[in-house]
Amino acid sequence: MNFASDNVYGVHPAIMQAMADANSGTQSSYGSDEFTARAERQLCDIFEREVDVYLVLTGTAANSLCLSAMVPPYGGVVCHSEAHIMVDECGAPELFTGGAKLIGIPDPAGKLTTVSITRVLDGFIRGEHDPKPKAVSITQATELGTVYNLDEIRAIADLAHGRGLRLHMDGARFTNALVSLGCTPAEMTWKAGVDALSFGCTKNGAMMLEAVIFFGRSLSEDFIHRRMRSAQLLSKGRYLGAQMNAYLDNDLWLDNARHANAIAAYLAGKLEMTGKVSLPLPAQANEVFPIMPRGLYEHLQAAGAVFHEWPGEGPGTEGLIEGNMFVRFVCSYMTTKDQCDALVAEVEKWNGRA
Amino acid sequence: MNFASDNVYGVHPAIMQAMADANSGTQSSYGSDEFTARAERQLCDIFEREVDVYLVLTGTAANSLCLSAMVPPYGGVVCHSEAHIMVDECGAPELFTGGAKLIGIPDPAGKLTTVSITRVLDGFIRGEHDPKPKAVSITQATELGTVYNLDEIRAIADLAHGRGLRLHMDGARFTNALVSLGCTPAEMTWKAGVDALSFGCTKNGAMMLEAVIFFGRSLSEDFIHRRMRSAQLLSKGRYLGAQMNAYLDNDLWLDNARHANAIAAYLAGKLEMTGKVSLPLPAQANEVFPIMPRGLYEHLQAAGAVFHEWPGEGPGTEGLIEGNMFVRFVCSYMTTKDQCDALVAEVEKWNGRA
Amino acid sequence: MNFASDNVYGVHPAIMQAMADANSGTQSSYGSDEFTARAERQLCDIFEREVDVYLVLTGTAANSLCLSAMVPPYGGVVCHSEAHIMVDECGAPELFTGGAKLIGIPDPAGKLTTVSITRVLDGFIRGEHDPKPKAVSITQATELGTVYNLDEIRAIADLAHGRGLRLHMDGARFTNALVSLGCTPAEMTWKAGVDALSFGCTKNGAMMLEAVIFFGRSLSEDFIHRRMRSAQLLSKGRYLGAQMNAYLDNDLWLDNARHANAIAAYLAGKLEMTGKVSLPLPAQANEVFPIMPRGLYEHLQAAGAVFHEWPGEGPGTEGLIEGNMFVRFVCSYMTTKDQCDALVAEVEKWNGRA
Amino acid sequence: MNFASDNVYGVHPAIMQAMADANSGTQSSYGSDEFTARAERQLCDIFEREVDVYLVLTGTAANSLCLSAMVPPYGGVVCHSEAHIMVDECGAPELFTGGAKLIGIPDPAGKLTTVSITRVLDGFIRGEHDPKPKAVSITQATELGTVYNLDEIRAIADLAHGRGLRLHMDGARFTNALVSLGCTPAEMTWKAGVDALSFGCTKNGAMMLEAVIFFGRSLSEDFIHRRMRSAQLLSKGRYLGAQMNAYLDNDLWLDNARHANAIAAYLAGKLEMTGKVSLPLPAQANEVFPIMPRGLYEHLQAAGAVFHEWPGEGPGTEGLIEGNMFVRFVCSYMTTKDQCDALVAEVEKWNGRA
Repeated sequence: MNFASDNVYGVHPAIMQAMADANSGTQSSYGSDEFTARAERQLCDIFEREVDVYLVLTGTAANSLCLSAMVPPYGGVVCHSEAHIMVDECGAPELFTGGAKLIGIPDPAGKLTTVSITRVLDGFIRGEHDPKPKAVSITQATELGTVYNLDEIRAIADLAHGRGLRLHMDGARFTNALVSLGCTPAEMTWKAGVDALSFGCTKNGAMMLEAVIFFGRSLSEDFIHRRMRSAQLLSKGRYLGAQMNAYLDNDLWLDNARHANAIAAYLAGKLEMTGKVSLPLPAQANEVFPIMPRGLYEHLQAAGAVFHEWPGEGPGTEGLIEGNMFVRFVCSYMTTKDQCDALVAEVEKWNGRA
Repeated sequence: MNFASDNVYGVHPAIMQAMADANSGTQSSYGSDEFTARAERQLCDIFEREVDVYLVLTGTAANSLCLSAMVPPYGGVVCHSEAHIMVDECGAPELFTGGAKLIGIPDPAGKLTTVSITRVLDGFIRGEHDPKPKAVSITQATELGTVYNLDEIRAIADLAHGRGLRLHMDGARFTNALVSLGCTPAEMTWKAGVDALSFGCTKNGAMMLEAVIFFGRSLSEDFIHRRMRSAQLLSKGRYLGAQMNAYLDNDLWLDNARHANAIAAYLAGKLEMTGKVSLPLPAQANEVFPIMPRGLYEHLQAAGAVFHEWPGEGPGTEGLIEGNMFVRFVCSYMTTKDQCDALVAEVEKWNGRA
Repeated sequence: MNFASDNVYGVHPAIMQAMADANSGTQSSYGSDEFTARAERQLCDIFEREVDVYLVLTGTAANSLCLSAMVPPYGGVVCHSEAHIMVDECGAPELFTGGAKLIGIPDPAGKLTTVSITRVLDGFIRGEHDPKPKAVSITQATELGTVYNLDEIRAIADLAHGRGLRLHMDGARFTNALVSLGCTPAEMTWKAGVDALSFGCTKNGAMMLEAVIFFGRSLSEDFIHRRMRSAQLLSKGRYLGAQMNAYLDNDLWLDNARHANAIAAYLAGKLEMTGKVSLPLPAQANEVFPIMPRGLYEHLQAAGAVFHEWPGEGPGTEGLIEGNMFVRFVCSYMTTKDQCDALVAEVEKWNGRA
Repeated sequence: MNFASDNVYGVHPAIMQAMADANSGTQSSYGSDEFTARAERQLCDIFEREVDVYLVLTGTAANSLCLSAMVPPYGGVVCHSEAHIMVDECGAPELFTGGAKLIGIPDPAGKLTTVSITRVLDGFIRGEHDPKPKAVSITQATELGTVYNLDEIRAIADLAHGRGLRLHMDGARFTNALVSLGCTPAEMTWKAGVDALSFGCTKNGAMMLEAVIFFGRSLSEDFIHRRMRSAQLLSKGRYLGAQMNAYLDNDLWLDNARHANAIAAYLAGKLEMTGKVSLPLPAQANEVFPIMPRGLYEHLQAAGAVFHEWPGEGPGTEGLIEGNMFVRFVCSYMTTKDQCDALVAEVEKWNGRA
């Protein structure tokens, strides 16, 4: 019953096998290997155009490197106030960009809107005393398990571009959002106006694999130097390439995400039916965020369920009734219905009240 | 006949197996897994004391993170003018330290000496107009395949400490130097005065695994934040821990290095006997640096040998006779005598002259 | 009728004269001159202890340099969400600290409190994924013309120190606050627990003069290097020293601030009596922040009054009635009653309504 | 007899008077004053074209800000190994550029040449493992009191531009070089291919005044933000503008430099005639660099002459005969023939020998 995060689970066997298969013979180092070359072609195919692909090792690196190519050191990045880049990366975006300012916008559904972005941008009236906003960053799926639809992305992109800003997408759970929308990767990114993407694979079954993807060359100029100086260029690059090969082969990435999303929806439904928790947000990807009594939380923890209180806010959580908690359950590509059933059984078993 | 680098070879099967074995079940993420915990204990055992260990993903990260904990942004790092931190990391040390200055000292044998360090430090007479030297960084084994002996390390450490500087060791080829000297890890590091170590495993058979090791707590204060903000904290940390477990188990690390060193010595001897190349430096670790005629270089490349011209200097290379080249052959834990014999046979076959 | 800022006025004649008087003969450069030496002694006298003093050229430099000595690059600085370091320095604190995170706390009176600071610090539960809060910065007088009393400062200092944080005071309007409280410089700083101070002189009659002052040596270690590398060490340092000499001689600094505060109080009283504006905050220093109808604002601007809408929030400004504005009037050491009377006369003349 | 530096002397009376004259009334702050506006027009006139001008407070700031607009954080700057940016600014260029690498080229005459630059650029063969050279910086007049002629500047500019690099000129002693060459400011800068200039005024009679000047708009995009975040935007900007007005009015800048150069030539001639020192370099600007016996050095110091040993190298100084020293005499706009005569008399008085 481990719902703590997608990253407490291991690597998909097909990916592990591909890494083992890549282990024979010599390969040019630093990303000049044949596996990486194939990964780059695969991603061009998937995105239906030439894309500039740079494999890196962590999601924080992917985000921070994307932003470093998008904003100058005196720039600003508009993002959600609970975005991963804002609250989970210990200032990595500031380091990689040379000190750019993150401008957080609170929103209970975890989303930016053209209204909230416009309000923030209109507040930059101090000229050179202000940093200069140069990018908007959205997280897809959001930190709260919701998903921007294509119209929302397009509207934000249009607003950003109209004001001279670029649009970054933190796709740590890109595929979960993709299968949730049922659209193509192209539709969810460059066709909707996204300029740069952190394409996350680790949470969805890879070992340590993220890709920085630029749609258009201007952002990727000299990017190999940026990756190198941030210590994200792997000498034995074949093991990143091989992961990506297997991740994309045979729709593994899509299948993994579909499974995780389906399980999350199943869990959300079951939890709601118990009547003991409330779900202020729809489970559109692979995460479920219930509000539950502290007594139930403690009961579940004692029963061995692993999950965490969520430190951010959601709809209706600001004035949480005394004794209630806002918590997060994450379903991975390996999470099973049995695990959900076991959890729900424990919820049912609890006799306390909200 | 691939002698381009240690990193063109794959991962040792025992390490690959350990990663596969670590793949079942859930593990706490971000380095709180049981494999990483075991790796930390192993390293304490090997170094015969409590050490603070931080697993990271690349050698550049290990070096740059070590330095970031050792020198302030206005500080200086004394190193060899051809050190990896100076010429191969695209400014990563500058990024991670916030702009500290690397002060390169040329030396044909690839080594710093107390004499050359003293001369450089004595040149810092401009007070606040100068950066403030705060660390010395030595590479063990050196970039030129030579090895500092224990007295040399101790002398440099004493000089550094006497002047208020710390001593960093870039141990990208730590184990090759260790087995070359036949001493203990403790003797080659903290007992000789080393304050922080980049403990490299990737070149010696791991997939992507380096460790930052601090001897003494003062340098490691808050270091978890430094690692995180430089995007070197792996979410599925078990795969770093498992690599280290297998790397250290059953003396695999030592055996790998002994093999690589022995092969390099074998190759050096065979090459010298051909009379067609000269070896200005002893092959004390796993690298051989001959001076050879360009015609021979081209013959070997055409014959399929993979190796590179070395852009730095060595003894006698400054005034290279017209048409001669300074080249590098790297032997890895997988390089075989047969490969060396094939190479030497091609050297013999060449009829040109220097 | 220029109330735009304290810095639209010139330099006090006594300070200008001192600069001219310092112009003869040679002086050692880079702050080793006799004027600077005297300034340092003066400041030790005024603060009733040894203090480490570093003269710099702008308030942004003073703040950013203070913070760079107080927090590491992975650190966090708790401040008001409208603090000068947060919204007026274009990321200078981020540049000078190497990327530390500013954590803004909104408060309608412009002040931090132990309650609001505690709430924010308690939210740092993500361990290494969070920056590590290392300093609190308060502005005295505040951005909204209010003043922390000694108990408030002491309480914040105790809280900060108890949690391992340092306390910085942005004293751009230090003297205005000082004479408002009627206490000694020592009481308002180190005796209340302040660790580092940006001692502002420019707004109060100097030309370009701010001092970084550390109470205790640990923060000032190597600070001369920090000042130099941020390009704040003046070669002809005598002209900073001479400014400070004259600023502190004959109580000029205190007289200037007393005048500015008195004029602000006078203006506030007069404005309030018109019944056409409201004053949500007391004018405790040299600034007055009325809420006024847009019609009145436009009338005054047309009449030649120079002042600005305030982009931040104050008490009661969040839900400003349609058509009202929150504006700022700054009184300087040169502002006269006549100017205030002229302004008030224009307010009286206006026939519109709120 | 103070020849320590140009900055031990004060401010030219005409400049001091202009500052005093600017002291009445109110002026818009932050460089929006009328004095600064006039300074910008003056500089456009002098350079015979539209130039983007940004007044700043120190030469280190001017240089570092120029470079920050010319090279990315992963970039490299080719400069002389003894350039001010390399050895006198405590890493300010690294701070302001976000970590770019300075690549120093030794040369006994203090000059870069197309040969030495080409050799260095050709050594960047490591691809992304190298920083990417993006600018060349030359100092005019050089650190050794020599001057690049127009052909030399043009040749370096052509080389730089042909390889995609920009050309920066550190003009801390711009006017001394200008009057030495007898050309126009336009000829010595943009007509010869210079892209950005640090236009120094402080050493030549101003109080604290340098200008960043861009020839062409692409480099100055958003530069106001760069200046602000590096704390170089003065609130009472009129005092920079007024300095520049007086500096350029009535050829004051040219007269000051002509005087300083003439005095230096006079001193050089007189010193040489004593037969007790040698002058390995021509005194082309306002500095004289003799080689003298240590005994003479000590005699002069004892006699009250103020000047310093020069820590860098010059022609013939590498193998200085035991007991000889390489020293620097700087002549300022205020230095008199009498001072020179007094110094030379002391040289004559000395009975020792080289």
